[in-house]
Order: sequence, then structure tokens, then C-alpha cells
Amino acid sequence: MRHFEDIQVGSSMTASGHELRAEDIIAFASQWDPQPWHVDPDAAERSPMRGLTASSVHTYAVAALLLNRMEPVAGIASIKHELELPNPARPGDQLTLTMTCVDKRVSDSKPDRGLITFDGVLANQHGTVVLKLRSLMMVKTRAGR
Amino acid sequence: MRHFEDIQVGSSMTASGHELRAEDIIAFASQWDPQPWHVDPDAAERSPMRGLTASSVHTYAVAALLLNRMEPVAGIASIKHELELPNPARPGDQLTLTMTCVDKRVSDSKPDRGLITFDGVLANQHGTVVLKLRSLMMVKTRAGR
Repeated sequence: MRHFEDIQVGSSMTASGHELRAEDIIAFASQWDPQPWHVDPDAAERSPMRGLTASSVHTYAVAALLLNRMEPVAGIASIKHELELPNPARPGDQLTLTMTCVDKRVSDSKPDRGLITFDGVLANQHGTVVLKLRSLMMVKTRAGR
Repeated sequence: MRHFEDIQVGSSMTASGHELRAEDIIAFASQWDPQPWHVDPDAAERSPMRGLTASSVHTYAVAALLLNRMEPVAGIASIKHELELPNPARPGDQLTLTMTCVDKRVSDSKPDRGLITFDGVLANQHGTVVLKLRSLMMVKTRAGR
């Protein structure tokens, strides 16, 4: 378990190996975001994206899944997430998440916790970035164990 | 289908009626974000949040689901989403999404499309806000039909 003190600004962790399959894109979007270009391959071919693309929620969910494969962080709360989707995620993508600590500060009023900003990049096997993430997390210090 | 011209700055739409059940929180998080406080009621009771809370991905997915119940927007791409989670979503929450257009501009180079910024608020039956969303969407103009 990584506490506030264990996470250094500039340090990164990576998790990989999530394959996005067409049937998973369709199943996820059918439940949560049933836009034609996420659930219907024919409609997707005729759409501006020219083919099936994952819902942004699905792409974010894959990032969460890969994050859970890294050594856990002693999180208290996730406060804010900024998601940019520079390119759509598509069937056949093999996705890798890299999370980098870009800022941290201990709480002035509560020494058992601190705030850490992580920048995440989710990219496919060609290096195409499908999600850029900036997450502000509240994390326990060792005093907060 | 709402095109760029149909969406006025200051206009809002609302969709409601999603109940968050404990078993849904656990099922979603088991698949995508298996933190103890999302999947294990006993561990959740002992966590700083004092009880089961929905994964931020699940909360965002509910917002997408409710968005899909509104009159559809002629979207081309979702470009950026900022998510703030001021309070956790919990079992028994009855969630309502309100989306307000806060900015729009037509593309200078491509008159078939424009960019619209929507502010979203997902709140429970007590008015507690569980997700604040700011979304930048590329939307077709009528010329882009």
C-alpha cells in the first residue's frame, strides 16, 4: 500500500494488457451510452468517426481497471478528474495506462492526509493516446494509517 | 435531433429516475474499480467514507445513461470532460441529471460543426450533488446534416 510519503513527484507507474474487443464496446455502450456509433457497427461506419468507437465512459472505465492493477494507493477520496479524449478507442486496441505524480501537498489542517495530482495517459499499441487524465486524489499519510 | 443551432446558451434539460442500488454499485465496481469501499460493505463501513460508495466511473456512467434519455444531440465527438465528485453517490440515491449549455461557437474553418460546452449536475433526491460535469462536445450544424 502506497501512502502519501511513498509517492514522489515525477514518479510513474504503468499497467498494460487490456484488449478492447468490438463485442465489449457494444455491450458496455448498450448498457450505459447507447449512441449508434458505440453500439451499431453499420451506423458507426457511416458516422464521422468511420467505425465503432468506445464510449468515453468505457475508455475511462478501462483506465480505472488498469489503475487497480498497480500497487494500491491509500486513497481517501477522488476529488476531481479531467478527461481528454484526443482520439477514439477502437476494437483491437491494446491499452496501456501510465500514471505520473505531478504534484503533492500535505493538508495544513489534517496531517493524516494530503492531496496528490496524477497525470494519466491511456494509449494503444501504436502509441495513439485515447485518454488523457488529470486526477486529484486525497491520500492518507502514514500518520493516517 | 438537436443540432448546433437548436441549443441555446442558458438552456437546460433534465433527466431523472435512476436509482443506485447497493448490488449495482458492487457489480459495477467488481468489474471496473474493485476498491474495498466500492465492493465490500464491511470494509466500506470502516473506510473514511463510512459506507458503500459508487466508483467515480459508475457515477459518470449514470450521468451518460441519463444524458441518453434526453433529446439526442447531433454529436460528432466528445472532446473533454471535467468531473468533480463533491460527495459520494450511495445506495438508495435517486439520481437526476441537469445539463445546461454554457457556451457555444461555430467552427471558423468548418461551418458544418461547432463546439458546445455543457455544465452538468448529477444530484440525489436530497439535492446532494454527486457529480459536477463540464463537457466540451463537437456538434453538427444543420449544414452538417
